[in-house]
Amino acid sequence: MFEYNCKDFKALTYFDATQEFTTSHRTPRTFLENCLEQISNKEPDIKAFVTLQSEEARRLADESSERWANNRQLSAIDGMPIGIKDLLETADMPTQMGCEAYRGYSPGNDNAMVSALKDAGAIILGKTVTAELGGAHPGPTKNPFDLNRTPGGSSSGSAAAVAASMIPVAIGSQVGGSIIRPAGYCANFALKPSQGGLHRGERQTTSMSTHGPHAGSIEDMWQVAIEIAKRTGGDPGYIGLQGPPDPPKSVKPSRLIFLETEGWSVLDSKSKEAFSMLLTKLESSGVTIINRSMSYLVEQLEQTVSKASTIANSITSWENHWGHRNLVNNSPKGVSQRLKNTLKKAEVMTPEDYRNHILLRAYAREAHRFCSSVADAAITLSCPGPAPIWTGDKDETNLAARPTGDPIFNFASSIIGAPCVTIPMLSVDNLPVGVQIIAQREQDAWATSLAKWIHETIPPVEIN
Amino acid sequence: MFEYNCKDFKALTYFDATQEFTTSHRTPRTFLENCLEQISNKEPDIKAFVTLQSEEARRLADESSERWANNRQLSAIDGMPIGIKDLLETADMPTQMGCEAYRGYSPGNDNAMVSALKDAGAIILGKTVTAELGGAHPGPTKNPFDLNRTPGGSSSGSAAAVAASMIPVAIGSQVGGSIIRPAGYCANFALKPSQGGLHRGERQTTSMSTHGPHAGSIEDMWQVAIEIAKRTGGDPGYIGLQGPPDPPKSVKPSRLIFLETEGWSVLDSKSKEAFSMLLTKLESSGVTIINRSMSYLVEQLEQTVSKASTIANSITSWENHWGHRNLVNNSPKGVSQRLKNTLKKAEVMTPEDYRNHILLRAYAREAHRFCSSVADAAITLSCPGPAPIWTGDKDETNLAARPTGDPIFNFASSIIGAPCVTIPMLSVDNLPVGVQIIAQREQDAWATSLAKWIHETIPPVEIN
Repeated sequence: MFEYNCKDFKALTYFDATQEFTTSHRTPRTFLENCLEQISNKEPDIKAFVTLQSEEARRLADESSERWANNRQLSAIDGMPIGIKDLLETADMPTQMGCEAYRGYSPGNDNAMVSALKDAGAIILGKTVTAELGGAHPGPTKNPFDLNRTPGGSSSGSAAAVAASMIPVAIGSQVGGSIIRPAGYCANFALKPSQGGLHRGERQTTSMSTHGPHAGSIEDMWQVAIEIAKRTGGDPGYIGLQGPPDPPKSVKPSRLIFLETEGWSVLDSKSKEAFSMLLTKLESSGVTIINRSMSYLVEQLEQTVSKASTIANSITSWENHWGHRNLVNNSPKGVSQRLKNTLKKAEVMTPEDYRNHILLRAYAREAHRFCSSVADAAITLSCPGPAPIWTGDKDETNLAARPTGDPIFNFASSIIGAPCVTIPMLSVDNLPVGVQIIAQREQDAWATSLAKWIHETIPPVEIN
Repeated sequence: MFEYNCKDFKALTYFDATQEFTTSHRTPRTFLENCLEQISNKEPDIKAFVTLQSEEARRLADESSERWANNRQLSAIDGMPIGIKDLLETADMPTQMGCEAYRGYSPGNDNAMVSALKDAGAIILGKTVTAELGGAHPGPTKNPFDLNRTPGGSSSGSAAAVAASMIPVAIGSQVGGSIIRPAGYCANFALKPSQGGLHRGERQTTSMSTHGPHAGSIEDMWQVAIEIAKRTGGDPGYIGLQGPPDPPKSVKPSRLIFLETEGWSVLDSKSKEAFSMLLTKLESSGVTIINRSMSYLVEQLEQTVSKASTIANSITSWENHWGHRNLVNNSPKGVSQRLKNTLKKAEVMTPEDYRNHILLRAYAREAHRFCSSVADAAITLSCPGPAPIWTGDKDETNLAARPTGDPIFNFASSIIGAPCVTIPMLSVDNLPVGVQIIAQREQDAWATSLAKWIHETIPPVEIN
C-alpha cells in the first residue's frame, strides 16, 4: 500500500488535533471527514473493517463539535473516531467475531468498554476485523505496508486501520499475543494492560485475556485507556488500571532487563541485529541493560517463561473448550477447521493438566515479581521480525500453523499478566518491527512513561 | 405441606439406592418414577420447577438402568435425577432466570457443569425456580415445611425440591447467600464450594459467585461435586475442587471457631438458644469452641467481616451493573422494580468505590487465612432463624427488602471465598435452621468431613 519509512512515518493522532478545536476551523467533524476519506481510499485494499457506520458517526461528530465549541467536551477523547474489534459487543452494530456461526449476531448490548467510550464522547465508527473468535484463523485484512503480508492477529483490523491512518485509535484484545504482535507488525503504539486492568465486559471466559488500545501516538493510547478505566474500572475482582488523567510524562529508565523469551533463539538475524543495535543505543544513553547471564533472578524468569507458549495455549484452549464445543455442536459448518483442530486438542486435556499449567504460570508470575527490584522494566521485541507473507491456505488438510504470525515474543508477558507497551522502534527490510516494554503488574502508567522516553529519545533502527 | 420433625426427617438419597441397583429390582428408572410421583403430588403446592422433562428423563433412566445392570455405569451418580437452577444454561430446556425479559430464552448451550453431569450419566430432570437473575426478587416457590414461608433464595426451587424429596440433588448458586441460606431454611445438605472451585461456565460476571449442590445427604452432595470437578475443574485461573472420589470420611474437629458475623447480634432468641445448645453439645463431645474473646485473630476476622453485607452488595451490584443496564435498556418492562432499584444504587458507584470494597474484601480473606492454625474450621448458623413468612409484595412503591430471607450469616463466608457445608442441625418452632461449617480456601473435602462427623455424632437441637 505504502512503504514503511521509519524516520518519517507518523500515524493519525487526535491528541494534536484537539489542541486546535477551540482556535481554528478544525472540529471533530472535520477530523472524522479526514478519517472517512482515508477509509474510502484505502479500505478496498486493506479490508480493516467489518462494519462502518459513517452517517451515525457524522451525527455524533457534529454533536461533539458543538460541545468543543462551547468548551463543554465530555473528556479529552470527546469526538475521537474509534474502531472496536469485532469480538466486543456493540448495541448498534452486529458482533460477528470473524466467525461464520455468528454472522449477523446482534445481542443488542454494549460491552462495558464500548459503553465507557460512548460516555466519554468518543465515536464508535465501526467494527474492525478479528481473526475467528480471537484465535488463529485469519480474516481478510492486509498489512498496509505490504498487501501480501498479514497485519498480524487476532486484532488484525484494529492494527491495520491505525497503521493506515484511517482512525487514531482502535480497540484490540489479547490472550496470547493479539494486541502487541499486530501492533508491532503495523507500527502502532499499543497497550496490553495488566491482567484485569480494563473491564472486559461480557468477555470473561479466559483467565489471561485483556482489551486495550492500538493508537497512532502514545498520548492517544494512554488517554483512551484512562478514560475507559475511569468509567469501567477493572475486571471483576481486580484493582483496575489507574494513573494520571493526562498522558504520563516520559521517564528515563536507569535499568532494563533484556528478556529473551522463547523468541530470541528463533529470530531472524536481521531483526536480531536491529534489536541489538537498539540495546547498544540505550546503553550509550546511560541505560543499563541486564540480561540472564547478569542476574540469577532474570535467569529464573527466563526459565519459567521458556515454556510460555505451551502454558498459554494449554490454559486458553481448555478455558475455551466448552464454549467452542457448544458452538461446534450448534453450528458445525459455522466454524473453521483450524478451530476444530484446536478444540480436538483441548478435549483430551483433564482438569489435572489445566491445574498443572496454571501452577507453571504462577511460577512465572512469582519469578517476574521477584525481578521488580532488578530493573525498571523489561524490554524485548513485540513480534518475531517483520510480518510474514500470507496469501491464504492451500487446502483444509494442510493448514498453515500461524497465518497471522507467531506470538512467540508475547506469551511470556501474557502468562505473567504484566502490562506491555509496544512502540515502533525497528525497521527491517522496510517493514516495521515493534519493541515492547514490560512492567510489573498494575504499573501500566510506568510502562507508558518509560516507552515514551525511549521513543522520544532513541532514533529508530533501520536494517535493510 | 408437611411438618418438620428434625429427629425423623430424612430426604431422598441416591447414594443408598445405588447399593441395591445390582442386587434388587430397584433401578434408576424406578428411582426416577418415585421422584416423578413425589413431584406430581407436591409440585402444585410447592412450585419448585420452571421446566420438567419427564419423558426424556425416563428414556435416559432406562439407558442408565441398562448400564447399572451390566455394571457399566459411567459414575456413582449415573442415573441420578438432578434439578438445575434456572440461571445455568441448558441446551434442551429454556434458561429463563426468573426474569420476564428472558422468557423462552434458549441459547442452545449446556453450562460446563450441566455438560459434566450429563457426561457422568446424571439425568437433568428439570430447571428449578430462581429468584430473578439470582437476586432478591422472588419466584413462586413455597417452603415445603410451611407454604406461607419462603424457601429462601435465590436457589429457591433447588432447596425446596430437595426438601420435598422430589429429587436427591439440585444445583444452586450463591453470590451473597443463595445456596447456604435456602438450604438452611429447607433442611438440605449443601456445599458452597471455594471461590472458583467448580467451573461456572458462561456465568463469569461476578468475582464472588459459586455453583454447588443441594442434597438430601452429605454423601450425594459430595459425590455430585466431585463428579463435576473431575470433568470441569475450577473456574478460569483457579485450582479447582479436589478430594476423594468417594464421600470423605467423617473427621472429629478438635477446635472450631464460633464466628458471630453480622448475624448474631440480630438473631432471634430461640435460634440463639438452639445454636448455643449445639455449641455446648460439641464441647461436651470434646470439641473446643474458640470465640472472638479468646483469640485476637478471630477478633480480627470478626472485625473484617463486620461490614460483609455492604462489601458483598457493593461488589456484586457494581459487577452486575453493565449487564443489568443493557437488560433494562433492551427490555424495560422485562425486569422487576426491585432490580431497577438495585441498579440505580450501583450506577452512582465509581471504580474507586469498587476498588475500596475489593480491598476490604482482601482484608477479610487475609484475616481468615491467618486463622487457619487457630482451629480446624469455623461454625455459625446458615440462616438467621427459621424461614420468614412471605406472601407477596403489597405494592411496587413499598417493596419488602428481603422476601427470601436475609443472607446476613452468609456474607462473611461469601466475601472470604471459603468453602461452606450446611447441615440441618437445629429445629426452631418446628422449622429447620441450618448450621454451616466454614473451612479454609480449597479445603472443601475437609469441611465435608467435619460436617459429616458433627451430623452423625451430635443429635439435632429442637426448641419450640
